[in-house]
Amino acid sequence: MKKPLILVTNDDGITAPGIRKLISIMNTIGDVVVVAPNSPQSGMGHAITLNAVLFKEKVTIDNGPQKEYSISGTPADCVKLAVNEIIGRKPDLCVSGINHGTNSSISVIYSGTMSAAVEAGIEGIPAIGFSLLDTSWDADFSHTETIVRKVTEHVLQNGLPKGVVLNVNIPKNEVKGIKICRQSKGQWVEEYDKRTSPHGKDYYWLTGHFVNEDEGDDTDEIALNEGYASVVPVQFDLTAYKALDVLKKWEL
Amino acid sequence: MKKPLILVTNDDGITAPGIRKLISIMNTIGDVVVVAPNSPQSGMGHAITLNAVLFKEKVTIDNGPQKEYSISGTPADCVKLAVNEIIGRKPDLCVSGINHGTNSSISVIYSGTMSAAVEAGIEGIPAIGFSLLDTSWDADFSHTETIVRKVTEHVLQNGLPKGVVLNVNIPKNEVKGIKICRQSKGQWVEEYDKRTSPHGKDYYWLTGHFVNEDEGDDTDEIALNEGYASVVPVQFDLTAYKALDVLKKWEL
Repeated sequence: MKKPLILVTNDDGITAPGIRKLISIMNTIGDVVVVAPNSPQSGMGHAITLNAVLFKEKVTIDNGPQKEYSISGTPADCVKLAVNEIIGRKPDLCVSGINHGTNSSISVIYSGTMSAAVEAGIEGIPAIGFSLLDTSWDADFSHTETIVRKVTEHVLQNGLPKGVVLNVNIPKNEVKGIKICRQSKGQWVEEYDKRTSPHGKDYYWLTGHFVNEDEGDDTDEIALNEGYASVVPVQFDLTAYKALDVLKKWEL
Repeated sequence: MKKPLILVTNDDGITAPGIRKLISIMNTIGDVVVVAPNSPQSGMGHAITLNAVLFKEKVTIDNGPQKEYSISGTPADCVKLAVNEIIGRKPDLCVSGINHGTNSSISVIYSGTMSAAVEAGIEGIPAIGFSLLDTSWDADFSHTETIVRKVTEHVLQNGLPKGVVLNVNIPKNEVKGIKICRQSKGQWVEEYDKRTSPHGKDYYWLTGHFVNEDEGDDTDEIALNEGYASVVPVQFDLTAYKALDVLKKWEL
């Protein structure tokens, strides 16, 4: 059987341990092309570069068989450029991550990792974003391998429903198993850290903590809290279908 | 009756004619606070600033009664900072725009304009993003006023379903009326313009054209093509509920 062509990207930058781990796993499954940002892009959401130019650099980072390119852009830029200019065709799969830090619940909206997966999904490529619940650069990714491999092989074998990509989050330590979940309702509650520069100007650092507002037991937050990896099917048709009927009663 | 407190933001920057028009309309409806980016942020998706600091500047741009602040961040940053540090409470409404350019169909994903509305929605604030189908800086916004006013007053009067914000797109010229729509299935097909710098380095400009892949007659694309303003209810629970059952049959 022909080996699948796998595009690997991320939002922590091409040298991050999380993507190096993902590349090493994907090298055992298919032919790998890495197209990833040359610098960290966390919190970039689904940003694309419209008002600046993109530079591409062919790079070699380890001794693996993969081809690698670093890009002066966002994760979504990487996927677009990979498909249109670097690979020149749709890969059979796009995987993004492994992110250093959670992308569960509402974080999916802010996530550069997931934006790459969603961009691939829009272009009709099966796609998965992987995240580990540990933000540290030297996080331990060893226990993620079983989960990453299992989900990837299932997607390669079965495909994904049209218009759907996967958001996979993995607990920091040991994993009990995998649960299919819905996105938990919650939000980040901001706490701005206000400071004054040496030049007398006030500035702010964004900080905050996540508040889970969801009491259901079928959410990604619950699964992760119980020690399971969570798999949420994510769509990019944002239409709130249930709201259509409500709005249609308005006399506009 | 007490006047509503309205937060106005955008992604084209605080001096763009589109937001100036929106401010002038909102001044006739409520008390207005403007918190908007100090530079254009188009295509920023739902980006937030995690790895840099935010500066805030109190500014006066015209003779209106509104208070105005320009921020060195993204549209989502503006909403967060407005609620937490500038206003110090949730406004009664958040409006974003009027964007110079369309945010219909899949463009909602890349849109800074809509990211501000979605951010407000996540924080429980009724929110609307407005966009005009004309990218030029000196676009004519005069015919948008009726639409903006009508939709805004309906939202203030009726509220919005929980977890839903509105994506309103307005044709370039005359408008026949307003239609409640779903997001059209489609994508931007990229065409990278490859050039060489004076220093011999290759670089790329992202260009492309939109391809509508949707044959339905209830989409925003169809409404806009027929000369109607489109109103799409947008949700930020991205769970593909229909896919849950499919995935649960996988043996993971």
